Amino acid sequence: MPVDINCDMGESFGRYKLGQDAAILPHLTSANIACGFHAGDPTVMAETVRLAAAAGVGIGAHPGYPDLQGFGRRNMDIALDEVGALVTYQLGALAGFVKAAGVPLIHVKPHGALYNTAAGDPRLARALAQAVGGFSRELILVGLAGSALIAAGIELGLRVANEGFPDRAYNPDGTLRSRREPGAVLESPEAVAANAIRLATQGVSFADRRVPVQTLCLHGDNQGALVFAQKVRQALAAHGVQVLAMDKFLP
Amino acid sequence: MPVDINCDMGESFGRYKLGQDAAILPHLTSANIACGFHAGDPTVMAETVRLAAAAGVGIGAHPGYPDLQGFGRRNMDIALDEVGALVTYQLGALAGFVKAAGVPLIHVKPHGALYNTAAGDPRLARALAQAVGGFSRELILVGLAGSALIAAGIELGLRVANEGFPDRAYNPDGTLRSRREPGAVLESPEAVAANAIRLATQGVSFADRRVPVQTLCLHGDNQGALVFAQKVRQALAAHGVQVLAMDKFLP
Amino acid sequence: MPVDINCDMGESFGRYKLGQDAAILPHLTSANIACGFHAGDPTVMAETVRLAAAAGVGIGAHPGYPDLQGFGRRNMDIALDEVGALVTYQLGALAGFVKAAGVPLIHVKPHGALYNTAAGDPRLARALAQAVGGFSRELILVGLAGSALIAAGIELGLRVANEGFPDRAYNPDGTLRSRREPGAVLESPEAVAANAIRLATQGVSFADRRVPVQTLCLHGDNQGALVFAQKVRQALAAHGVQVLAMDKFLP
Amino acid sequence: MPVDINCDMGESFGRYKLGQDAAILPHLTSANIACGFHAGDPTVMAETVRLAAAAGVGIGAHPGYPDLQGFGRRNMDIALDEVGALVTYQLGALAGFVKAAGVPLIHVKPHGALYNTAAGDPRLARALAQAVGGFSRELILVGLAGSALIAAGIELGLRVANEGFPDRAYNPDGTLRSRREPGAVLESPEAVAANAIRLATQGVSFADRRVPVQTLCLHGDNQGALVFAQKVRQALAAHGVQVLAMDKFLP
Repeated sequence: MPVDINCDMGESFGRYKLGQDAAILPHLTSANIACGFHAGDPTVMAETVRLAAAAGVGIGAHPGYPDLQGFGRRNMDIALDEVGALVTYQLGALAGFVKAAGVPLIHVKPHGALYNTAAGDPRLARALAQAVGGFSRELILVGLAGSALIAAGIELGLRVANEGFPDRAYNPDGTLRSRREPGAVLESPEAVAANAIRLATQGVSFADRRVPVQTLCLHGDNQGALVFAQKVRQALAAHGVQVLAMDKFLP
Repeated sequence: MPVDINCDMGESFGRYKLGQDAAILPHLTSANIACGFHAGDPTVMAETVRLAAAAGVGIGAHPGYPDLQGFGRRNMDIALDEVGALVTYQLGALAGFVKAAGVPLIHVKPHGALYNTAAGDPRLARALAQAVGGFSRELILVGLAGSALIAAGIELGLRVANEGFPDRAYNPDGTLRSRREPGAVLESPEAVAANAIRLATQGVSFADRRVPVQTLCLHGDNQGALVFAQKVRQALAAHGVQVLAMDKFLP
Repeated sequence: MPVDINCDMGESFGRYKLGQDAAILPHLTSANIACGFHAGDPTVMAETVRLAAAAGVGIGAHPGYPDLQGFGRRNMDIALDEVGALVTYQLGALAGFVKAAGVPLIHVKPHGALYNTAAGDPRLARALAQAVGGFSRELILVGLAGSALIAAGIELGLRVANEGFPDRAYNPDGTLRSRREPGAVLESPEAVAANAIRLATQGVSFADRRVPVQTLCLHGDNQGALVFAQKVRQALAAHGVQVLAMDKFLP
Repeated sequence: MPVDINCDMGESFGRYKLGQDAAILPHLTSANIACGFHAGDPTVMAETVRLAAAAGVGIGAHPGYPDLQGFGRRNMDIALDEVGALVTYQLGALAGFVKAAGVPLIHVKPHGALYNTAAGDPRLARALAQAVGGFSRELILVGLAGSALIAAGIELGLRVANEGFPDRAYNPDGTLRSRREPGAVLESPEAVAANAIRLATQGVSFADRRVPVQTLCLHGDNQGALVFAQKVRQALAAHGVQVLAMDKFLP
């Protein structure tokens, strides 16, 4: 099976710069672009869509909670219909730039606390999947491999992509080890590359089920991001794993 | 010639309620829905789109400056490319709800200071028209009758609708009398209805050119809004002016 | 024992108007003024402080979560030191207007989700109390009668005011019945007045302890607010309960 | 005459980092701390006040327009009384952290577009000066040397500090050369140091009047900031100009 490689992008805001989007794009097949709620602004979105389109990378929306100060990483107790509306809003906003750039919108991947909570909360997961499906039944919903978000997408008949994190340690039940715990983030390029191979070839064990991983998430906001990206690509090539944009191989 | 009747809607935000959207919708053919920058929020937008779609009223985007406290009425010195991006963002966001509701997006009407400044500033007008045309060449651009915004839309080959304001007094050059001057806002339903007839049948004189008016703006946020709407509709009927959604008769 | 009567005020924002501050002020001894995070803006704050000062009503800060759309009623998972900082910020901001008006700042009452969560969460309660005490040891901390917030204030040596809600039903443990349950909000002025008498003369039973109530909260944002306020004042007078600003009788 | 050296600080926001506050503090006598409208957030403000207090540097408020995306550099057409309120709000908010840290608030310096516009607009200048004086008559108002803001402060009887910019080129009338023009920002440390000496010893010629400069602004957000700061301090020492906090020598 091939595997997709995605990265969160467009996380700058006004004068504040974050990430190294232009440098990391050549290593990716998919870009998750922030939509202005937890990061990004209209100018940044226009520019990031332009960059990703020029690089031929698949573009997805990366909606988050309305919390710029918290970077979308703080849970907010928002009613389900309101969460659905804020996802529709962000999907639409990004789709506007994608439309203007003459390229298709391929996928949706929730951000931060929205992603993590939806991984374990079937009601929130369903609200997100409904918002995505209500917007377009062509979009691929990206979620933690095996999680409630993936299940909600499947239940609604959406295309889904199970995601794995090469630079993160996993708990035995297939959830990510919390960043508050030691060893949660892998720091050696070799360990990240080995993790990538394992995820791409064996998938993860989520709640005792074996789940294939269809897209690998790289992080673009740390020093080693480019080295990690190169190592992961080299390791995948060495193990005969084809890297391909998710819409090219997902059913 | 028929005339369209439009009204700004969806201007509530969170717990703050503004306007009487449900009551005024039956009197309209077009609704300009706020997009979350100067007013409106995702939940309000979803609900307003639903209401307008159910009423069979044409839906348009009503983008404004990012200034909720100033309700988009304060000028902001924003670079032209950034203005374009924030218009694309808001168009897209509203289009998301419109798409989810299964109805078409018909028009775009800038709000407040953005509308007023673009009426007289050809560079800003062009930036707005480019953002609209870049998003979709099907959209109708609504602007002050005869203004620079209309000229910019025509120059770019967009469909345009010249707008008149039955409840506002005009300067001799076709611009609106400033709200800071006495008599700027007409308060008698009869005067408003007479103004509507004049606008619909004679158009306005803008910079010494005669310009037809294709859409009339009613305001929905004051006490008399419903009475005004009824009087205007009655007067137009009595004078044989057909009221029709703008996309039904504009070239 | 005398009792104080407080009300949340200054909840308008920009063009959005909420409440009837000027009308209800004569019935109060304390005003809790929103600080721009969940409601209020600098212009509204300046005007509300002016109104309250002119009415001779004690002024307090009413800080909330940074969530205008949710009116501060949605929980946010914010780190304790960050909560402390946002309380200090809001206290300071309101204190600026109070200083400019030449009157003292008397009390602090957290708003909405911040108030409710701090009532039951000793760690959040302590963070709030520390922020208040760090700003000024003269301020009176207002919290749900008998709650963790009151306990935290006492532990830090702050002056505290136990608050009761005449228009709300209580659970047997002294917490407020959730607004999602039927009967949570009393709707008859007589029932509210009777509740006020009971709270002022008997206090509440919180976790099986008898706790006196030193301030009664009226709500100013509903139709009946003025009638409720009058009825409560009349009932208190009829039962010989003196109504007095909290700083005049609290130890 | 001695001279003060100030720098804008606390311009980070949430996850977005800007500047190198800790490194540049030892070179300063005054810190202008952003107040959360154009930059900064409560957590950043608390930390920056702590840093500045620990370094023994004089703390001032640095209020700006409510425009995080534009970093307060875009003009906004805000009514004068509303500008006054937003300055009072920001002054108060910063004063809260300063109070909690047990140090005094020394000065106020408007930021970006607010600073630049007030330099040439006597009505805005007066609104700012009134807000500052209404908050405290002890605060020192910092403005462009010789400008309308300084004049407004003097007229209201406030202490003022005329500011010079060693790394900026000046127009013949004493205003700063626009950043849009070539050569507006000096890039050689030697030129900046020479400019600092000239400003500190000769002042500036503003509208044909000779105006002394009492505080020099360094910028902390570029690569060379630390080198510039060291060069300027060395040059001042070599020319016998004492560097002293503004409140120590201003009348």
